[in-house]
Amino acid sequence: MSDSLNRRKFLQATAVAGAASLWSPSLSAETLYEANVSDIGKSKWDLDSPALCVDLDKMEKNLKAVHTALKGTGVGVRPHVKTHKCPAIAKMQIAAGAVGVCAAKLSESEVMLVNGIQNVLMTGVNVTASKIKHAMELRKKYKGFIQAVDNMQNARDLQDAAKAAGIVADVVVDLDVIKRSGVRNGQPALELAQFVDKAPNLKFHGVLAYDGAVQHVEGFKARREQALKTFEPVVNSYELMKKAGLNTEIFSGGGTGTYDIMTEVPGFTDVQVGSYLFMDHQYMVIGGKNNEKEFDDFAPSLTVMATIINNSNEGKYVTDSGAKALTLNVPHGKIIGEPDFDYNAGSDEYGSVKIINPNKKYNVGDKFEVIVPHCDPVVNLYDFMYGIRNGKVEKILPILARGKSQ
Amino acid sequence: MSDSLNRRKFLQATAVAGAASLWSPSLSAETLYEANVSDIGKSKWDLDSPALCVDLDKMEKNLKAVHTALKGTGVGVRPHVKTHKCPAIAKMQIAAGAVGVCAAKLSESEVMLVNGIQNVLMTGVNVTASKIKHAMELRKKYKGFIQAVDNMQNARDLQDAAKAAGIVADVVVDLDVIKRSGVRNGQPALELAQFVDKAPNLKFHGVLAYDGAVQHVEGFKARREQALKTFEPVVNSYELMKKAGLNTEIFSGGGTGTYDIMTEVPGFTDVQVGSYLFMDHQYMVIGGKNNEKEFDDFAPSLTVMATIINNSNEGKYVTDSGAKALTLNVPHGKIIGEPDFDYNAGSDEYGSVKIINPNKKYNVGDKFEVIVPHCDPVVNLYDFMYGIRNGKVEKILPILARGKSQ
Ligand SMILES: Cc1ncc(COP(=O)(O)O)c(C=O)c1O
Ligand SMILES: Cc1ncc(COP(=O)(O)O)c(C=O)c1O
Repeated sequence: MSDSLNRRKFLQATAVAGAASLWSPSLSAETLYEANVSDIGKSKWDLDSPALCVDLDKMEKNLKAVHTALKGTGVGVRPHVKTHKCPAIAKMQIAAGAVGVCAAKLSESEVMLVNGIQNVLMTGVNVTASKIKHAMELRKKYKGFIQAVDNMQNARDLQDAAKAAGIVADVVVDLDVIKRSGVRNGQPALELAQFVDKAPNLKFHGVLAYDGAVQHVEGFKARREQALKTFEPVVNSYELMKKAGLNTEIFSGGGTGTYDIMTEVPGFTDVQVGSYLFMDHQYMVIGGKNNEKEFDDFAPSLTVMATIINNSNEGKYVTDSGAKALTLNVPHGKIIGEPDFDYNAGSDEYGSVKIINPNKKYNVGDKFEVIVPHCDPVVNLYDFMYGIRNGKVEKILPILARGKSQ
Repeated sequence: MSDSLNRRKFLQATAVAGAASLWSPSLSAETLYEANVSDIGKSKWDLDSPALCVDLDKMEKNLKAVHTALKGTGVGVRPHVKTHKCPAIAKMQIAAGAVGVCAAKLSESEVMLVNGIQNVLMTGVNVTASKIKHAMELRKKYKGFIQAVDNMQNARDLQDAAKAAGIVADVVVDLDVIKRSGVRNGQPALELAQFVDKAPNLKFHGVLAYDGAVQHVEGFKARREQALKTFEPVVNSYELMKKAGLNTEIFSGGGTGTYDIMTEVPGFTDVQVGSYLFMDHQYMVIGGKNNEKEFDDFAPSLTVMATIINNSNEGKYVTDSGAKALTLNVPHGKIIGEPDFDYNAGSDEYGSVKIINPNKKYNVGDKFEVIVPHCDPVVNLYDFMYGIRNGKVEKILPILARGKSQ
């Protein structure tokens, strides 16, 4: 192939894709829509499997439920798009009253910004020269992009890069909660915040604190106690900053498991809920405030349709949906209508379903609808979701940030 | 957006993509190449992470090694593309002497056929009307497409669909080995083969038998014994068919763990090796014929570059590469140069590395090169691999069948 041919083809392709992004081109919403438009109107039971489906009524209910629950508490919602990776859904979240969205990585942030999401807070840090430079270019183009920092050297690097880009970059300090990311609470946190605040090309906006280890603690009471205890040093850092006269307009954190607990944290401004839209088996089993048996504040809206391809062995069905369709997460996916069946997606291409207390007999070619084990990584396996209403495909939702882990 | 605009854009996009495929459009090789062409020549240590890399020297060595080892045994190689999902690599396998390739699913088969791979044996079955119809359309267009069947009703459905499509479809019978897919051995297998053989619109070519449970048995001796024992009923079916005068030109199965054992199975024609190209930590630990400690017949060529983003907690490093970059498979990924470190990719976005017997100290921004835990599902997370030679990016290898699990 000649270079000029490549160049021409490439320009055509990116013109179509519209949102050319840094690491690898995402398909445009239009392309994905058109390529699968023939599925619109089909029953979900007639889709080629594995098919990722979201029940739109349930998702829209979840979308509202979090705002209804938090109304009047003073705590806002800044949903995390790592869960859905879909600009179309981010737009629904903004329309429902979100103050902005969170994104995990730079490439994920970029897909959101380029596709019209104005306020994106990146919860991860950028530590390499190339990513920092790219982050500053993004901030130059998109005023609502906020970056996180969790160590002093990185703050210096951000300052230098912002200066080189000729901008003032918006920054929050990530506080340590689960010994994963984050600066140590207390004096180190304060000093980092003060450094950012004083840096001429950085603007300090407040703090992040994500208590990942608390989200799935079983039992609301235990979860509440652990969350509030975990947040004590975080609140301490926040108060040191406030006393020092720093801007604390953002105090963001929490997730679906603690969204109704974070309201008790002094100064806390917004919850970074992600899974609330889709739910998954991991979250269903933790129990909620009003239902100790099942966390049902939000309805499980995300499912994978899987087809039985073999039933010739006693006690089990084999499906066409394995780890590449459902991931290895535990607890396993949950088959709607067969509460006791165990769906093991341990094999790459095949699901193995143990038949326990069956409600009916199934034939080869029949489908199971499976509530996903853990929503985020399952979504990351598909190019699009089928938006289902009353059992039929209403629309195609392109997962434009799929694979954007950079 | 107006419909006509969409239509025009769509036609442009598929013209560029060339290989429009059924369920969702894959990016063309050209598009991916162009979009990442600026990375060519870079050191692998300078790539934005997570980055999937394949060492070309090692891969090319592996590519040859399997043919060298099997030379003169009468057993051929029919590599499984589920591992790499990359037509460019399938072409290398054919050039190296493969008799054709295997593919797991219909959409994966389609990507290979559309992109110039002529002989594709699909090891999974198609059981729904829509997939069977699509499979027959593919066979009509691509003469080298062979389908599997494992039950009588499905054979009848294939016959009807082939007849409706006006073709004679090429079929192999999948034999039960691990109680997953496959027809029961002995009389049921023979009857199914005879039905296919007699069906006017189907042509019987032989049998498939994949012993998935044996591949990772530790210790060559134990693996050999188990493989040969497992294959006894399979060989029995094969011999019944041969005695009945059926066409047994294909007797395909096995994998990387048993490629040098299958030569002892009477009648066996070709091994469906997949992982041999890349290797992974799961395979390294099983031990080989000549090295009980490490299965080193093939060199680990596939790695993920991960960046340290936090080192503020005693005894561990946190990286930017979690389950969305490396999957949850065990044993964990293996850091080159730090044999005792434990790389836990259990969190969606973060890797957590336990420091054990360190050889050096690392800073935030430093990178680890990680041998993947299990190659197939890791490849399925990325749009492309960086082809690395002497530490530098030589080319971009687009994973065009990524996500093609339908
Ligand atoms: C930083 C951060 N905030 C928020 C969330 C969202 O959590 P959830 O899906 O539990 O609501 C996550 C998920 O991992 C996260 O990493
Ligand atoms: C039917 C079939 N054949 C061959 C293979 C290739 O196996 P390996 O990667 O172990 O060589 C697989 C892998 O799962 C398979 O499912």
